[in-house]
Amino acid sequence: MGQSQLPESVKLGQHVVIEEGVKIGENVTIGHHTVILKGTVIGDNVIIGSNCVLGVKKSGNQKMRASDVKQPNLIIGENTKIGNNVTIYAGSEIADHVFVADHASIRENSTIGSQTVIGRGAIVELNTSIGKRCTVQTLAYITGDTILEDDVFIGPCVSMSNDKYMGKQPYQLKGAHIKKGAKIGNNATLLPNITIGENAIVGAGSVVTKDVPANVTVVGVPAKKITK
Amino acid sequence: MGQSQLPESVKLGQHVVIEEGVKIGENVTIGHHTVILKGTVIGDNVIIGSNCVLGVKKSGNQKMRASDVKQPNLIIGENTKIGNNVTIYAGSEIADHVFVADHASIRENSTIGSQTVIGRGAIVELNTSIGKRCTVQTLAYITGDTILEDDVFIGPCVSMSNDKYMGKQPYQLKGAHIKKGAKIGNNATLLPNITIGENAIVGAGSVVTKDVPANVTVVGVPAKKITK
Amino acid sequence: MGQSQLPESVKLGQHVVIEEGVKIGENVTIGHHTVILKGTVIGDNVIIGSNCVLGVKKSGNQKMRASDVKQPNLIIGENTKIGNNVTIYAGSEIADHVFVADHASIRENSTIGSQTVIGRGAIVELNTSIGKRCTVQTLAYITGDTILEDDVFIGPCVSMSNDKYMGKQPYQLKGAHIKKGAKIGNNATLLPNITIGENAIVGAGSVVTKDVPANVTVVGVPAKKITK
Repeated sequence: MGQSQLPESVKLGQHVVIEEGVKIGENVTIGHHTVILKGTVIGDNVIIGSNCVLGVKKSGNQKMRASDVKQPNLIIGENTKIGNNVTIYAGSEIADHVFVADHASIRENSTIGSQTVIGRGAIVELNTSIGKRCTVQTLAYITGDTILEDDVFIGPCVSMSNDKYMGKQPYQLKGAHIKKGAKIGNNATLLPNITIGENAIVGAGSVVTKDVPANVTVVGVPAKKITK
Repeated sequence: MGQSQLPESVKLGQHVVIEEGVKIGENVTIGHHTVILKGTVIGDNVIIGSNCVLGVKKSGNQKMRASDVKQPNLIIGENTKIGNNVTIYAGSEIADHVFVADHASIRENSTIGSQTVIGRGAIVELNTSIGKRCTVQTLAYITGDTILEDDVFIGPCVSMSNDKYMGKQPYQLKGAHIKKGAKIGNNATLLPNITIGENAIVGAGSVVTKDVPANVTVVGVPAKKITK
Repeated sequence: MGQSQLPESVKLGQHVVIEEGVKIGENVTIGHHTVILKGTVIGDNVIIGSNCVLGVKKSGNQKMRASDVKQPNLIIGENTKIGNNVTIYAGSEIADHVFVADHASIRENSTIGSQTVIGRGAIVELNTSIGKRCTVQTLAYITGDTILEDDVFIGPCVSMSNDKYMGKQPYQLKGAHIKKGAKIGNNATLLPNITIGENAIVGAGSVVTKDVPANVTVVGVPAKKITK
């Protein structure tokens, strides 16, 4: 069970692994077989499902870039719920009242704002900032170096990228910047370094190749403005 | 190992967790580290892989809707096979001879018909009815409130949605209704509340924005009828 | 802990399951709860995360085709790293210095070349050959019977298929053949049996319906050549 001091109020499933230096708040529930790695900090009233791995250290091979981690630990805020078979990396901060659904994965150096939902099987890459009250739907892909402001809606299976040259030449990796209240329809494709304006709407299945102004709706391949 | 009465014919892997009130038929195999939660009912000759979590209770945060569960338990029919790292919710029924591949996830209030295949990493959301002999391919996304009739083929990475307003205003959530024998090509996008007629075909990568009649093939963005 | 003979240099997490007939090289690290199934061969200096299942035997139901396995075991080369919650099948070979990210899945009869990256949540189906120094990005889907030559880049969420008739009639299943140095943009859709020429580029969100010559860039639905 490791060396970490656990409060009496914690409810642990069977075969839970808690490594050293883990801090756990009051009234926390941790499901069967979940693994909490070194240094993870878990707030009061957090509920975690089974088979999760929390506090993963970054890894990679020689083809992959290194990433600097601003702070070394995974921090999970109060009243947040985490599903089953979830992986979250050390060096990220999940705020309070967040919901992270089953099979989701969140990498290092990312922040997830209060009340946000990270959907089933959704993936959030490194160096990403997600605001408050966002919805990142099932199987959506938030690439690295992305900014979602508050109240953004990312539909199911939305795809992003941050590498204009697909590894061919050096490039400052940069994902999308999606401003407050914007909504991206399911299975839309965003090219690297796109800005989506406040309250803009991107239709389902669209391919967004350039910036979208505020309050505009775009659809199609490539995505163009429609008048309603 | 919990309080459930297990038949002598069950084959259990190491560190299996079986909570109370679980019913297990004859000749069942359960892989290492798999977790069977309260009240789950497993039929004869079922084979389950490692690291699964079966019988998950629904969860969420305040941004997510509640769902009523018609019956409280997960029920798995005879001769069904479930892969590894799969999560399935309480309140759903999986029929006999079904195959659920690794990393798939099935939510509450759903039914999966006999001989259907749910592919690797595929996700089936709540309140969904899937018929007999369907194929839901790898990484396909079946949104909530969807109906697939018998013999439907859903290609890999197909994306659906059930929320016309993307959370902006109240709306009766409604996924697609895909009729008997229809086939949806890989990475096609379906908008909410679309009906696809019997034996219709949707081409790969198409975006379906309105109903498709029976026996018709549609392709493109938006999807239009082609003559063959 | 099973009957396999383990070298003294192995570092095992808690509750690791190692079945019989497993061969493990020097200086191998295996994370908590990981399951290594019968006959798996692991090279020196391999690092494996938590909650993996390695060496899975193929399965299926009567709707799914059988596959012949050329050699019966999973073989993992030296210095390869495998993340958390990963599943890999018996009958595949992963070369040295490969990185397989969290939640990825690789099926039987596949080979992954040296220094290649298989991204987070990416899926590689059966009978697939992936060359050296390839990048298969997050959530990309490599269908069965696919060939990626060396130095290929597959963007995030790329979708492939290998079944022209979607199960409707007999057909020799055949995925794409992607030649050396080609790059496929994120969320692109490839139809079955497409050849992508050397150093060709497919734009993000494109739908590729026919072969792409070498050194050409194609974009759109259906994908067409652009002049730069």
